[in-house]
Amino acid sequence: MAAALKAKIDGKTKPLGALGRLENLALQIGLIQHTLAPCIVQPHILVAAGDHGAAKAGVSAYPQEVTWQMVENFLAGGAAINVLARQVNAQLLIADAGVAHDFGPRAGLIDAKIGAGGTANYLAGPAMSLAQCMDAMQRGAAIVRDLAATGCNTLGFGEMGIGNTASASLLTHCLTGLPLAEVIGRGTGLDDAGLTHKRALLAQAIAIWPQRPALGSLAERSNHEDGEADPGVAALHILARFGGFEITLLSGAMLAAAKAGMVLVIDGFIVTSALLVAAKIAPEILDYCVFSHCSNEAGHRLQLAWLNGEPLLDLGMRLGEGTGAALALPLLNAACAFLNEMASFDSAGVSRA
Amino acid sequence: MAAALKAKIDGKTKPLGALGRLENLALQIGLIQHTLAPCIVQPHILVAAGDHGAAKAGVSAYPQEVTWQMVENFLAGGAAINVLARQVNAQLLIADAGVAHDFGPRAGLIDAKIGAGGTANYLAGPAMSLAQCMDAMQRGAAIVRDLAATGCNTLGFGEMGIGNTASASLLTHCLTGLPLAEVIGRGTGLDDAGLTHKRALLAQAIAIWPQRPALGSLAERSNHEDGEADPGVAALHILARFGGFEITLLSGAMLAAAKAGMVLVIDGFIVTSALLVAAKIAPEILDYCVFSHCSNEAGHRLQLAWLNGEPLLDLGMRLGEGTGAALALPLLNAACAFLNEMASFDSAGVSRA
Repeated sequence: MAAALKAKIDGKTKPLGALGRLENLALQIGLIQHTLAPCIVQPHILVAAGDHGAAKAGVSAYPQEVTWQMVENFLAGGAAINVLARQVNAQLLIADAGVAHDFGPRAGLIDAKIGAGGTANYLAGPAMSLAQCMDAMQRGAAIVRDLAATGCNTLGFGEMGIGNTASASLLTHCLTGLPLAEVIGRGTGLDDAGLTHKRALLAQAIAIWPQRPALGSLAERSNHEDGEADPGVAALHILARFGGFEITLLSGAMLAAAKAGMVLVIDGFIVTSALLVAAKIAPEILDYCVFSHCSNEAGHRLQLAWLNGEPLLDLGMRLGEGTGAALALPLLNAACAFLNEMASFDSAGVSRA
Repeated sequence: MAAALKAKIDGKTKPLGALGRLENLALQIGLIQHTLAPCIVQPHILVAAGDHGAAKAGVSAYPQEVTWQMVENFLAGGAAINVLARQVNAQLLIADAGVAHDFGPRAGLIDAKIGAGGTANYLAGPAMSLAQCMDAMQRGAAIVRDLAATGCNTLGFGEMGIGNTASASLLTHCLTGLPLAEVIGRGTGLDDAGLTHKRALLAQAIAIWPQRPALGSLAERSNHEDGEADPGVAALHILARFGGFEITLLSGAMLAAAKAGMVLVIDGFIVTSALLVAAKIAPEILDYCVFSHCSNEAGHRLQLAWLNGEPLLDLGMRLGEGTGAALALPLLNAACAFLNEMASFDSAGVSRA
């Protein structure tokens, strides 16, 4: 299939390789969909929201109630992701994975609440139990299974949760072995003092967890043999310790999306931390991932390098919500379109080099 | 107006600056259109085609007849730019500025032919007369004036012409003072021997023109005083010596588009060489330019750096035709959309940091 796709791409009326990354993208989507005529069908963006027990300790520039206020903004259609998803004809799915607010039954809001008050504070103990962790992953998977049954074959991922860059930093450090200080950033806009405080708090969160799985065994991709610990199990322990419910829901959703043969459109730093967990459990998930953009949040570039992921866009954005995923969708459409619609040298009667 | 636009951008429900380059783009388009509610209306892409007398000397990997064959491909809808323009809802305008082929009267083809056989060979003398140069610029301007009258406010630029990266390299060297060897690339795909041959030919083209304007006076932007030579005049001489008819038509079209208050969407290496000429004549044109992408053709990155132009995309493309301009249009739409459609902190009742 790869050779047949390559031959089709190279026969198009253009110099060899002249469409650059679009050609790689067409090849990847063709391989995911097992076809010479790939197509982006009913693209969706799943935005998961959740609150973090550690948020009140001062890891964010914004107060915790912004999480539920922004969910209301999503439901009213006024947030950045609403606008950008409309622009690219993507449908939005908003999931409450554990926002510290009672929305009641609401049209347009998927109730996947794991904990009514958000996660526990990882500065005092685990953010969630392993049972909650599994539950959140299964809820994410269930959303995706329902979606796949409607014919959707492309899913972007987004998130909202005050404090969740801190959670993502802890997960990234533990899952990759990247130095903690290098994967901590300003999030929604901490000043220098705020950043120093965040760094101290997160170092403390690591220090008070002496039972954490050794980093050494986690720094490589899953390639364990019988008798060795499965890196996926260790990843779940790390996720339960530091994760957010929204991140956890997304990890489960990603695993289900790859299993359904979807194209996964990865957003920024927090979404990539959810992918790190999923990739520890099932490394083959990376074949299904398109890295939409490189966020300006410190650490995202390091995550991408660790995953060998090349982002399509690099626009200095750091908003989350799946905004990078939305902006990249036209490039996926363009990749499929050139493969399906361009003439070949033979069909157009154009001379070759 | 800039302050009012900035205030509107900063009031949106997102951390300050979190939409990165999209925010700069919204500000720029707002300033071009003198409004707090900018909008991309009826975007078009003008693709100019022309043949080069030097093409037969071996500056390209492809034979010269590919120029007219590709124009036929444009008219039939099968080229990359047809596919990508359709994807982003942009209309195409195809102009024959001097292809060495008789198309006859053809629906969808603008007859702006300056020379029936393409330009003369700059290895023997000037590529065109100054009269032809002015004529080509005026034809480009006329196309844009007609277009502006229809309500279109955004214009991308593209080109087709076997041998035109060579022409663009010569123009770039003479207009910027960048070293000739650094702005010569493989074009449509020269091998090492072909590239060496191209370099030798272009060095010769420079060497046989002892009357060329001194580079020193051209390396800076136009800021001449009475009594000094106008850099625009020197730029026209350089354009007539080395230009293609398609490049010249585009320079004229760009000047008219900026005068009409349009957003100019600049494509790759060849289109940027046309902009270098236009910017020598009217430096304020740069305020109207969005740099859509960085091409993989050697020299484009240097042109962009010389112009202080930041490309939106960097996808390793080197196809021309306006393909980069087409791919960037959704980002322009996204920039306008967030400014027009996103809720503010006040309207959505979201707490500030």
